[in-house]
Amino acid sequence: MPSTIAQKLIASHLVDGDLAPGSEIGLKVDQTLTQDATGTMVMLELEAMGLDRIRTELSVQYVDHNLLQTDEKNPDDHLFLQSAAERYGLWFSKAGNGVSHPVHQAHFGRPGATLIGSDSHTCAAGALGMLAIGVGGLEIAMAMAGQPLYVTMPEIWGVELTGELPDWVSAKDVVLEMLRRHGVSGGVGRIIEYHGEGLKQLTAMDRHVIANMGAELGATATVFPADDAVRDYLTAVGRADEFERWEADEGAQYDLTEHIDLSSLEPLIAKPSSPGNVVTVAEAAGEEVFQVVVGSSANPGLRDFAAVAEILDGQQSHSEVSVDINPTSREVLADLITGGWLTSLVSAGARIHQSGCMGCIGMGQAPASGRNSLRTMPRNFPGRSGTEEDAVWLCSPETAAAAALTGKITDPRTLTETHGIAAPHPRMPDRYAHIPDMLLAPLPAEEAAKVELVKGPNISSLPDFAPLEDHLEVPAILVMGDDVSTDEILQAGSRVLPFRSNIPKISDFAFTRIDPEYPARAKATEGGHVVIAGKNYGQGSSREHAVIAPRYLGLKAVIAVSFARIHWQNLANFGILALEFDDPADLEQITRDDVVVLDGVHEALQSGTQLTATIGGREVGVHHRLSDRQVEMILAGGRIPLAAREVTS
Amino acid sequence: MPSTIAQKLIASHLVDGDLAPGSEIGLKVDQTLTQDATGTMVMLELEAMGLDRIRTELSVQYVDHNLLQTDEKNPDDHLFLQSAAERYGLWFSKAGNGVSHPVHQAHFGRPGATLIGSDSHTCAAGALGMLAIGVGGLEIAMAMAGQPLYVTMPEIWGVELTGELPDWVSAKDVVLEMLRRHGVSGGVGRIIEYHGEGLKQLTAMDRHVIANMGAELGATATVFPADDAVRDYLTAVGRADEFERWEADEGAQYDLTEHIDLSSLEPLIAKPSSPGNVVTVAEAAGEEVFQVVVGSSANPGLRDFAAVAEILDGQQSHSEVSVDINPTSREVLADLITGGWLTSLVSAGARIHQSGCMGCIGMGQAPASGRNSLRTMPRNFPGRSGTEEDAVWLCSPETAAAAALTGKITDPRTLTETHGIAAPHPRMPDRYAHIPDMLLAPLPAEEAAKVELVKGPNISSLPDFAPLEDHLEVPAILVMGDDVSTDEILQAGSRVLPFRSNIPKISDFAFTRIDPEYPARAKATEGGHVVIAGKNYGQGSSREHAVIAPRYLGLKAVIAVSFARIHWQNLANFGILALEFDDPADLEQITRDDVVVLDGVHEALQSGTQLTATIGGREVGVHHRLSDRQVEMILAGGRIPLAAREVTS
Repeated sequence: MPSTIAQKLIASHLVDGDLAPGSEIGLKVDQTLTQDATGTMVMLELEAMGLDRIRTELSVQYVDHNLLQTDEKNPDDHLFLQSAAERYGLWFSKAGNGVSHPVHQAHFGRPGATLIGSDSHTCAAGALGMLAIGVGGLEIAMAMAGQPLYVTMPEIWGVELTGELPDWVSAKDVVLEMLRRHGVSGGVGRIIEYHGEGLKQLTAMDRHVIANMGAELGATATVFPADDAVRDYLTAVGRADEFERWEADEGAQYDLTEHIDLSSLEPLIAKPSSPGNVVTVAEAAGEEVFQVVVGSSANPGLRDFAAVAEILDGQQSHSEVSVDINPTSREVLADLITGGWLTSLVSAGARIHQSGCMGCIGMGQAPASGRNSLRTMPRNFPGRSGTEEDAVWLCSPETAAAAALTGKITDPRTLTETHGIAAPHPRMPDRYAHIPDMLLAPLPAEEAAKVELVKGPNISSLPDFAPLEDHLEVPAILVMGDDVSTDEILQAGSRVLPFRSNIPKISDFAFTRIDPEYPARAKATEGGHVVIAGKNYGQGSSREHAVIAPRYLGLKAVIAVSFARIHWQNLANFGILALEFDDPADLEQITRDDVVVLDGVHEALQSGTQLTATIGGREVGVHHRLSDRQVEMILAGGRIPLAAREVTS
Repeated sequence: MPSTIAQKLIASHLVDGDLAPGSEIGLKVDQTLTQDATGTMVMLELEAMGLDRIRTELSVQYVDHNLLQTDEKNPDDHLFLQSAAERYGLWFSKAGNGVSHPVHQAHFGRPGATLIGSDSHTCAAGALGMLAIGVGGLEIAMAMAGQPLYVTMPEIWGVELTGELPDWVSAKDVVLEMLRRHGVSGGVGRIIEYHGEGLKQLTAMDRHVIANMGAELGATATVFPADDAVRDYLTAVGRADEFERWEADEGAQYDLTEHIDLSSLEPLIAKPSSPGNVVTVAEAAGEEVFQVVVGSSANPGLRDFAAVAEILDGQQSHSEVSVDINPTSREVLADLITGGWLTSLVSAGARIHQSGCMGCIGMGQAPASGRNSLRTMPRNFPGRSGTEEDAVWLCSPETAAAAALTGKITDPRTLTETHGIAAPHPRMPDRYAHIPDMLLAPLPAEEAAKVELVKGPNISSLPDFAPLEDHLEVPAILVMGDDVSTDEILQAGSRVLPFRSNIPKISDFAFTRIDPEYPARAKATEGGHVVIAGKNYGQGSSREHAVIAPRYLGLKAVIAVSFARIHWQNLANFGILALEFDDPADLEQITRDDVVVLDGVHEALQSGTQLTATIGGREVGVHHRLSDRQVEMILAGGRIPLAAREVTS
């Protein structure tokens, strides 16, 4: 049967399951990518499972998020990550080298490979004909330990591109058009596969833009063919020999189909505060602009900066606008210098920042209160910029440059008439800058084994978690209602996040939004405790700390009416038993500090799904939805101790 | 009588007093400079005194300190400062243009002029034969309102330079030698005037390095002659027509003398954590280095970056070292690009940050805990880097580059033998880069008058302060011991400083290190209150908020055994009566909430220095040390209301 590229990528890595959409499949993982915000926990997980050396083809630890270093915590993390990369056999990319996704694509991207990353924009690598998926930290640690990635087989969504992009319209407008049509959940449960004649015009870096923001559509992955454009790209980064052609078979069938005529597109912009709020720039024109930020994994190509530089060349940016430029990487910066583009930007009034994610993840560059900020970035969720009352818009480099010049949201197509500026078509070099030794290669195994992890005062090992007891008799020290989010279980923010590598410390913030006394009460309760909740417990962010922190404080089980999917999975991963009430009405009978008794837990979990709890003296029917694999985790104390047994055996 | 340059500068601006060291003199102020961390309060002071337009020859508001923008407060301040500059007729330098001192020197420095700035390194402008002094914010506001600067006439310290600097030794080593000899208070009460044959080798930017760190010697100012080197500099920045020769007369006498033979110098370094801990680099060699930072007002010249670039050219920096480069300004960055130096730096592994003070004032770039950071900056006070347990060293660009290469403190003179690297002598361009419209010129008066101040939610006007009552009968709500510092009166730090433009909010932190309940108790006390203290009250930082915040909460008078100099002056400036016990033993008799009665205060202040207070029912003799000018301030409610009368009359 003729296959799509996505099907071929999956089939060539399938170790478990089959290609029927909706079923669970296991995939061999070739490469992994971690960044510093999520990487410290991954490295602590590797340490906890006693891994000696990673088992992937290639794993890379990047430092691109926490670059501001307002105190010692971030630089201490950088040192820790560098030592962990040396210890476990990873490549390491130092602070200031640049944004993980484009650097990874340039140095390691390889058609036909699978890549998972603990960053949601890992999907950008689909630009090279890779299957690239963003996942949680523990999935990465498991992949490094040699385990497959388990995912639900997605539907394949074929998007045919025809025609040619008009002047002043670029790749960003293509993915904004997808968001305009389908919104931020349009891609959920799907792999988006682009095909058609229109691809010829799109370079690998253009495709990176489109694949990157597949994350904003909620897609599992985005794939492009590995065709001549990919060959040209690999040649330009000096790795022509790694090119391999991956294309869909003639007559391949997609589960869903879509068509975009590129020649019909015009400049688009996502209004505050969702990537799905897309309108034409013409509609939004005239709004005053306080700030323009160019950079991030969503528009990382040399071309994206050069286009801005060519528009601003010889001009002075508007006196009321802060023009912030985040060069993707040291190599892109080197090319911007060589091409004369950096001089144009500096002369026009730009602030040139260090290479990295910067304002895209709220690391500085916060706009003034309520003032419009136009960014070439992928996300504009409320407050993500660091400013409580922010107004962030997402657009192409062309649209960003137009606003930098005029101080207002401006359709870039008007610049030719108003300013005599021609549409930018910057000429790319045949070879991109290549800085030798920019990335530090893995140490040989013998040397690596001798490396000691470097832990600053704020970095502590992952605590050992004991297996679940067969007999539980512990108080329910918290009784909650419906829709408790992981932000309430463990808040994020600049006060709490710096302790991400310090479980004892971060656990002092567990549940404090619900009950400031929870950490103290939990610590005072010997032998552990349970918590009780209503519907949709654990909704929101996927953060693992929302499980690890209460676990550290002695949480043994959560009994709820129902659970949110990812948090439910995280609970099992860290050995906390998630039980559901047979009768939701039982919740009403429970009061704080009622004692919960569960007897013969081990056999009950192994033999079926039904258990009987005694809560406050009353018998209450409860059940679980754990797979055999998950029951095994729970009984081992979590996925890490389970893996530790396998890794060290 | 033959005069020194310092004497000529003072004599040509003298409006009050005479040139006898130790007496008070009043000086006409030609130019002022404010940066953003201190400027917001200055602008609020201008607003409070109702000034319509500044009366200096030239005043410039720079934004170079708070560039990280982790939330809306800093960008809101930037907007406010821009609107205030427009309103009052100042030049404005946007965020990212660069560090105030070198930018000011390049654009506005003029031999023979006086400059005061609300930044301690304002003294750097002495490099051009200016009299440049760092002062508090209110002094600047008063100067803008047309008032003279009052200072104590300093001694003139003639430092003769002879010989020539050896290879690998540069201007920074000259001022480090001064610090090695005399320590951090060696210059107190003095103007340092450099002269002699050795000057010929030192460019205006070299002299800037030396003048800048005169602040670290505690000197009132540093002056250099305006000679051929200054003419060459002004030519290179396109302002040859503003050159005017200022040299000491033959036979001029200095109050003190000193001699440095430049040819005898070797690379020096200040160890943690004081600029006065100077040793030779050779002595410190071998220490492992985590970070190298190049930039700041202490080494801002193009030459200083180019020297580092030439040393690193074609090399890769050490894998364990973070090499952070803060280009002084957009113009220096442009020249670094043109000269090919930026490419060398980027290729060698440097992180290129936006132009500004950055790590020098703890805005990011904090080193890892306990790891050595080598910086070309002026200060290494403990914790200033942002890292609690820091280890910051101060050195020349040459010494910084050597460590970047080897990962250890390394005498740069050894690089020729170990790495085959020649001593850097970068060739400077005949004309430095000049970016038109980089600085925004003052608006014409008519337009300026229409400008509204832009105040974000965190910016509030300076409260109106009422004149001191003639009859006081208020409780002493705080009774303190000796040596209370302004850090205890109003702490600094990242939790408090963001509220620097919001007096009502920042006053919630007043005295909380001594008594967390003070703000609440002060607010609950109608009619005001006094505080009681022992010796040396108000020692430490000169911060005005330590006076303004308690004043806002109702503080009328401080009765202490004795006062620290600057805080005592600040109390008068903001209309708080500072009284001293005739008999220190009276302090022992006072308990919290004793009522303090002062009667006939106005006449007592105007007619003499002695008053009688009733405290807790007992009569207590007290006295004041206020000048007539200060009594007038107190009776007007402070220096601002007093100035307001004059400004608007």
